[in-house]
Amino acid sequence: MNILKYLLIFIPISFVGEFMHFPPTLMFILAALSIIPLAGLMGEATEEISFYTGPKIGGFLNATFGNATELIISFFALKAGLFDVVKSSIAGSVIGNILLVLGASMLFGGIKHKNQTFNKKVVEVSSSMLLFAVIGLCIPAVFTHTIDPSLLNTKYEGLSVVVAIIMFTIYILSLVFSFFTHKDIYSINHSDDEGSAKWTLKKSIIVLALATIFIAIESEFLVSGIDSLTKTLGLSEFFVGIILIPIIGNAAEHSTAIVMAMKDKMDVSVEIAIGSSLQIILFVAPVLIFLSLLFTPMSIVFNPFELVSLIFAVLIVNRVASDGESNWLEGVQLLSVYFIIAAGFFIL
Amino acid sequence: MNILKYLLIFIPISFVGEFMHFPPTLMFILAALSIIPLAGLMGEATEEISFYTGPKIGGFLNATFGNATELIISFFALKAGLFDVVKSSIAGSVIGNILLVLGASMLFGGIKHKNQTFNKKVVEVSSSMLLFAVIGLCIPAVFTHTIDPSLLNTKYEGLSVVVAIIMFTIYILSLVFSFFTHKDIYSINHSDDEGSAKWTLKKSIIVLALATIFIAIESEFLVSGIDSLTKTLGLSEFFVGIILIPIIGNAAEHSTAIVMAMKDKMDVSVEIAIGSSLQIILFVAPVLIFLSLLFTPMSIVFNPFELVSLIFAVLIVNRVASDGESNWLEGVQLLSVYFIIAAGFFIL
Amino acid sequence: MNILKYLLIFIPISFVGEFMHFPPTLMFILAALSIIPLAGLMGEATEEISFYTGPKIGGFLNATFGNATELIISFFALKAGLFDVVKSSIAGSVIGNILLVLGASMLFGGIKHKNQTFNKKVVEVSSSMLLFAVIGLCIPAVFTHTIDPSLLNTKYEGLSVVVAIIMFTIYILSLVFSFFTHKDIYSINHSDDEGSAKWTLKKSIIVLALATIFIAIESEFLVSGIDSLTKTLGLSEFFVGIILIPIIGNAAEHSTAIVMAMKDKMDVSVEIAIGSSLQIILFVAPVLIFLSLLFTPMSIVFNPFELVSLIFAVLIVNRVASDGESNWLEGVQLLSVYFIIAAGFFIL
Repeated sequence: MNILKYLLIFIPISFVGEFMHFPPTLMFILAALSIIPLAGLMGEATEEISFYTGPKIGGFLNATFGNATELIISFFALKAGLFDVVKSSIAGSVIGNILLVLGASMLFGGIKHKNQTFNKKVVEVSSSMLLFAVIGLCIPAVFTHTIDPSLLNTKYEGLSVVVAIIMFTIYILSLVFSFFTHKDIYSINHSDDEGSAKWTLKKSIIVLALATIFIAIESEFLVSGIDSLTKTLGLSEFFVGIILIPIIGNAAEHSTAIVMAMKDKMDVSVEIAIGSSLQIILFVAPVLIFLSLLFTPMSIVFNPFELVSLIFAVLIVNRVASDGESNWLEGVQLLSVYFIIAAGFFIL
Repeated sequence: MNILKYLLIFIPISFVGEFMHFPPTLMFILAALSIIPLAGLMGEATEEISFYTGPKIGGFLNATFGNATELIISFFALKAGLFDVVKSSIAGSVIGNILLVLGASMLFGGIKHKNQTFNKKVVEVSSSMLLFAVIGLCIPAVFTHTIDPSLLNTKYEGLSVVVAIIMFTIYILSLVFSFFTHKDIYSINHSDDEGSAKWTLKKSIIVLALATIFIAIESEFLVSGIDSLTKTLGLSEFFVGIILIPIIGNAAEHSTAIVMAMKDKMDVSVEIAIGSSLQIILFVAPVLIFLSLLFTPMSIVFNPFELVSLIFAVLIVNRVASDGESNWLEGVQLLSVYFIIAAGFFIL
Repeated sequence: MNILKYLLIFIPISFVGEFMHFPPTLMFILAALSIIPLAGLMGEATEEISFYTGPKIGGFLNATFGNATELIISFFALKAGLFDVVKSSIAGSVIGNILLVLGASMLFGGIKHKNQTFNKKVVEVSSSMLLFAVIGLCIPAVFTHTIDPSLLNTKYEGLSVVVAIIMFTIYILSLVFSFFTHKDIYSINHSDDEGSAKWTLKKSIIVLALATIFIAIESEFLVSGIDSLTKTLGLSEFFVGIILIPIIGNAAEHSTAIVMAMKDKMDVSVEIAIGSSLQIILFVAPVLIFLSLLFTPMSIVFNPFELVSLIFAVLIVNRVASDGESNWLEGVQLLSVYFIIAAGFFIL
């Protein structure tokens, strides 16, 4: 996070750019560079607040604000009617968390430590949850792509809302599970050796509020640059959604996962990658579908390649999880699959 | 089973209905309500007979009569030329056993008991068998849907018969495996603490015979109501096949699985769900294909959505099995996937 | 290997046939029968050379020459422009290794030994590597088959080259992994109880050189017979590529796997099957793509059925591996899936 903080300088630059009507592609880049440290600050502030609220509310705050950046970016993309970008970025976040973040963590961690182990038990719980969640989320898409279009009727669009309600319910129930009925499973990980609060509660809340406001402003800059970016650089909207936005929204979190792996805390890295993916599916995706009802209803129908990539990613993470061990070669392999997918979308 | 027995009252009502020409949709409902307790009685009678025949023949009888109800219903649907209903009900039984039965068992069992465990070793054997069986069964469909139609020739329909012969052979070999070469693996489960016979052998045989006869009659009522049901209620044949028929045919067995889970005998619940799915694929499906040769040959080509749902279900059960543990949240997730699939077919 | 050696008699017969202009289908059969023992000799010679070079270079030689026969056959098929045959034979080798070789090993081994175990730890490393490799290899095909053709541009063909470079890099890195950074994992298996060299180094090198030359000649006979074979026997090029060529190229290696399983060295059998599959994907496939750049660039786009079969095979092997045990029924099931796939291609 320390180095990333220097990127905050791009916030004033992007404001200057907005007033001086910089070209939209440049605005996209400036906004992207501003959002990266802001997302990091937001995460830090949330963690600081947890010290004052106690683990239960803190865990809830973390679970809710953990992907707030992506939610805000996607909200503005939704408002702008960029449904393909929104859907791609949901798929891309899951794929990126599993292949890019986990892969990089295993590679860099594995270079420093020959074999790294993680708590198989905990990881298996969340990785099978992820399998079920991804399958549930993908069913409307499978349905749409495999059923004869003439059989689909108008009621059909409601399926996305049904899925969103079910996913959100599971999200609420999973909080009940982790903070009430089965809190003992998770207590092992959230050890108290992380020290005490660095900031006062007041400072933490102010930082959180400011970060949220600036992320919202920069997200608007970012989204308004997408159209120009795809045209001038010849990138597809899919590439922007599946590769760029997830990296921008998660860079801070990603760097934490890699740093943790290098400190041989592979448990934390794996939890960040899988936990973040779960939040995207169970919280961000349904909230976006609900929000879309205010504008134009968005269906959660992924295109077939996003679909297959999601299924592949989730099969891979389940394989990795049932292993309980990692090494640098496994990291290289996860990254390879990520780069092949990215290359596919890049040349589209 | 106790409460379900009261449903036997619907048998005479359905007979009255038949003579008084009740509307076919009502006849479907009456027949469905009659079949539920009859299937339960058939299962009970088979179990009673096992006490007299000893475990080997008893095991064989259970394996053969365990899905007799579905076989009978499907036979009449086959005779009526409702191939889509028959194929959907094969897929639906597997999906229902894994997602609905296992999900409900884990949810209700998990509400009473915080964490439930089951014998990983035994479950892994049957869940990997199920993986192989589902993959084998799905290959003709994958073939049909992925190969350029112009390449397919007439000999192609024979593939379903080849698959049926192979599946049936594996069924016979799996009986050899469990009752001869590897009987020790299974002996752990079928403990003798289930007490002794409640009925005499004669009574058991009479009940079995009567239940079979009445199931056959009610199945004919049921099948002749399908056409009217789909028209008046606007349901698709797929919904009837994939959701309704499997629930009707298996309700008794399903309630046993849930009761066992609540008694913390998760082993038995998992075995019912996976074992029943295996019997559907290795015994019911091939027998139906063989029987169809008497009328119009039925190919075992699932539609793409049934195919994907089957593969998803089997991936989920393999994930669940390799865990060896369950809790209420896992149950909720399995049920969620089931409801999303059902919602998809419902709005079709 | 002993019995297979008698097949060497078909080398002179095939030469006579070439001069006397035997019909091409007969030449295909003669060449096939000659290649089987030659591939065996090549493997034997490579192993003998390892005794002199020490384990590191020996391991590298084994990894490189292990699939030399397939590489040579595919090279001539490539030169003849039979891209479908080449791609099918890559998919077919993986499918054959996993379903046919592993299935036969488990069946024959399981008949002699009730339950066979293998080192789960080692097998899990290679089976998850195989999962990642197959997924990476399949992405271009998934991409091609799922994306709207109008979106694909000409740069798109470069994706196969990107994949080939990434796969080949992983191959090199996996050698670094097994011979340098993590050599201890593998040391357990390559025990020295295999005795000492039977042949002198000079003899080994001469046998290797001669076997390579004759395989090259016979491969040219074989490939020139494919066209006639598909026409006279009515077989599809896919059947030749996916079933026949992998069996011809791997027969010797396959018989070793089965013999090892019968000696209750299931570890070795599983390693041959998975290791050979990995070499095909990480070494043979990229080398063929590179070589194709000399003639007409070949894309690594499998047809959908090859794709699904590959994914199925890799799911099955991962299931098998996480088990750590095998028995005859598991063998029967793997073989059944293989025969259903083969039947599908046969009737095409």
